[in-house]
Amino acid sequence: MAERNYIFDTIKGVFRTFGYSQIDTPAMENLSTLLGKYGEEGDKLLFRVLNSGDCFSKVNFDDFCTGDGVNSAALSKEVCEKGLRYDLTVPFARYVVQHQGEISFPFKRFQIQPVWRADRPQKGRYREFYQCDVDVIGSRSQLCELELVQIVDKVFSLLDVNVLVKINNRKVLTGFAEICGFPDKVVDITVAIDKLDKIGLEAVEEEMRGKGLTDSAIEVIEQILKLSGSTSGKIASMRSLMSGGSASGLSSETGMKGLDELEELFSLIEAAGVSSPVEIDLSLARGLNYYTGAIFEVKSRDFAIGSICGGGRYDNLTGIFGLPDMSGVGISFGADRIYDVLKGLDKFPEGLDSSATLLFANMGPSETRYVIPVAKSLRDKGVAVEIYPESSKLKKQFDYAARKSIPFLSITGENEVAACQVSVKNLVSGEQRCFGKDDIEAIMSFLGVATEK
Amino acid sequence: MAERNYIFDTIKGVFRTFGYSQIDTPAMENLSTLLGKYGEEGDKLLFRVLNSGDCFSKVNFDDFCTGDGVNSAALSKEVCEKGLRYDLTVPFARYVVQHQGEISFPFKRFQIQPVWRADRPQKGRYREFYQCDVDVIGSRSQLCELELVQIVDKVFSLLDVNVLVKINNRKVLTGFAEICGFPDKVVDITVAIDKLDKIGLEAVEEEMRGKGLTDSAIEVIEQILKLSGSTSGKIASMRSLMSGGSASGLSSETGMKGLDELEELFSLIEAAGVSSPVEIDLSLARGLNYYTGAIFEVKSRDFAIGSICGGGRYDNLTGIFGLPDMSGVGISFGADRIYDVLKGLDKFPEGLDSSATLLFANMGPSETRYVIPVAKSLRDKGVAVEIYPESSKLKKQFDYAARKSIPFLSITGENEVAACQVSVKNLVSGEQRCFGKDDIEAIMSFLGVATEK
Repeated sequence: MAERNYIFDTIKGVFRTFGYSQIDTPAMENLSTLLGKYGEEGDKLLFRVLNSGDCFSKVNFDDFCTGDGVNSAALSKEVCEKGLRYDLTVPFARYVVQHQGEISFPFKRFQIQPVWRADRPQKGRYREFYQCDVDVIGSRSQLCELELVQIVDKVFSLLDVNVLVKINNRKVLTGFAEICGFPDKVVDITVAIDKLDKIGLEAVEEEMRGKGLTDSAIEVIEQILKLSGSTSGKIASMRSLMSGGSASGLSSETGMKGLDELEELFSLIEAAGVSSPVEIDLSLARGLNYYTGAIFEVKSRDFAIGSICGGGRYDNLTGIFGLPDMSGVGISFGADRIYDVLKGLDKFPEGLDSSATLLFANMGPSETRYVIPVAKSLRDKGVAVEIYPESSKLKKQFDYAARKSIPFLSITGENEVAACQVSVKNLVSGEQRCFGKDDIEAIMSFLGVATEK
Repeated sequence: MAERNYIFDTIKGVFRTFGYSQIDTPAMENLSTLLGKYGEEGDKLLFRVLNSGDCFSKVNFDDFCTGDGVNSAALSKEVCEKGLRYDLTVPFARYVVQHQGEISFPFKRFQIQPVWRADRPQKGRYREFYQCDVDVIGSRSQLCELELVQIVDKVFSLLDVNVLVKINNRKVLTGFAEICGFPDKVVDITVAIDKLDKIGLEAVEEEMRGKGLTDSAIEVIEQILKLSGSTSGKIASMRSLMSGGSASGLSSETGMKGLDELEELFSLIEAAGVSSPVEIDLSLARGLNYYTGAIFEVKSRDFAIGSICGGGRYDNLTGIFGLPDMSGVGISFGADRIYDVLKGLDKFPEGLDSSATLLFANMGPSETRYVIPVAKSLRDKGVAVEIYPESSKLKKQFDYAARKSIPFLSITGENEVAACQVSVKNLVSGEQRCFGKDDIEAIMSFLGVATEK
């Protein structure tokens, strides 16, 4: 929990400085909201909640028995109205539509909650896990995309993780398919391009040929793949290809629109002084059936684990719930992978697992009464302090401090009480000092905690 | 969410200074863990989660059809292995038993999570609501009770709510029943005493007579009810009654033990300088079948709403899961009622609902590029800043600031850009000032935010 809180608190702090508000949605949604949104496989992975009361009493079981046995899917619909949320996106869309009258658009929200999937549990895959989503909905401005890039930049700078931000645009991909002369083959083309690094140019071309692309179409793709140089140079070259300068001579209005968006976003990123490297990656194909503009992916530059953050712009998140033309853009932080990166790079700050800064050993009833007000004064200043509840053997109390990673121990016995002092020992360095019992500032300085408040 | 976060963040901050660690348990528990723990009514209010896969395919429905129709309870057990947690106590007990090898005792934990109950939803009663529990388990020391009283005192002082802390002790109640000569009637006696304020002494005595208490037993109760004076005076009088000085002449060892505990706790409370009033309330009867020592209840002194916090010591929380003799003490903060108190007394701090401190109006693309780095510098200092994403009419942008309670607006147009300035207006006072665009400290001072970090 301490490490997860560190990640979430860092992310939340950044969200807040950008004016995003936190929302929570209930764990249970109507199954009618959830079903059909995640494909056939997703429907199977939904946890369904049995209706309360005598939910089976009105069921005619014969209706659900077919020649093959019981139709579990149909019967479960009969006895379950609710399911556990499967992701944060669908509940968010439901929320926006339901509260559209009260929401101020553009609506900037973040949401950090668990989701549930009835997967077979295995290493790295849990039936309950956290998602962390941030979205702006109700504006088509590229400033929204910029904000998400800035948020990513700031979060990983605070977490001390070097990242690479990759950006693509769905409209540009559509444009390529159009100037190839195969507007329907966006997915096939993108999937093939995605394999370039792994299988090489020849194999990619072979794969596209297998998907029915002609040689002249493949020639256009080759022109695209050979683009190199700076981001602005790439955009300029794509602009020339997209406006009829490719081998096919075809042009694409959608593609040009996508390039306008990319160009504006990169210009904003430059103005904002984003410190992480940001580059165009034409093979970025996540959420291809879903995103309509920018597509984002973030990778750690020092730890190989795949994408740790991703998202994009969508134009029809809420259409399925009856609110069309609500464009938005969002990203999702992969908390579990970010955890793995921080663990792998040893980037969690020290002391996260320590329950307190100082433990007062329990030397007996009167000594304890003596240290209680000292502990109170330190706590009032924000210092985490424990008093061992039993006057057990010192060895046991030392062990408790060690197991809970408490770095300072106070053994204040009758001599210190007589002298109105408090003794504090740094368990790491071994250094031990005595303080006047009211000299809270000096104790805090020895503990290495700032004297705020 | 902002108001709920304010309450939880305050509480969490206090828990941390006392060295409590946060734990989360999964939403779903095995039904075998949950069933039978909350009484018959509780079992009915458990949300059950349907097993995944073809869960109905192996069910022989005839087995569950009785003369009266389908036995829903039995069938649901057949097709549901998991349920949603109903409170935080049972999952905590399960957690302690399961992780007993890894936990350092005394184990100090807090937990703030939603729970689910299949109640009919109504005003103030939801199917999903948060509980906020803090417990120490594995120590019988009264220092644990003291810490909880100190935590309550500190939390409500930070929330600026005057509270009264009431304390009782189960062993003292047992003692009273024993010196009455009716050791089995603890509950009847306590329930009757609890009504004293409402129905008066005569009616209370009538009720006890109805429950089978003799006149001489009632005389003993009367002696107890007439106790008045200081806490130490009351304890001394009870000590005399409990040691054979009552009308019955009977004495109670358990009662004496309870008085020892009460006396020690009050002495510790005095040593700790707890600022809220703390008093003995012999009618306090919460969790009577469950608590074995101290019983706590906290009430607002300025807002009538019943108890806003309560708890006590238990000796057998984990026994049901196979780990006996694990004494603990805990309290639960009633977040919903605390919310009502803060609302009712108008104690939520100002600005909680504002999404940001400053909104930069969008005056066009070049002005926006100009303010982006200023916004970044402010955010890097921890200030929440928004840039309106579209260059809409100013009226619309003003409305956005108003609806989101953003107190400062910057309208930085071409004149300011030409002069390398930023204009900031206090929307509450109407005061407007210009700053050099790099003079972040001066802007922050005008915004009234501290320049930390």
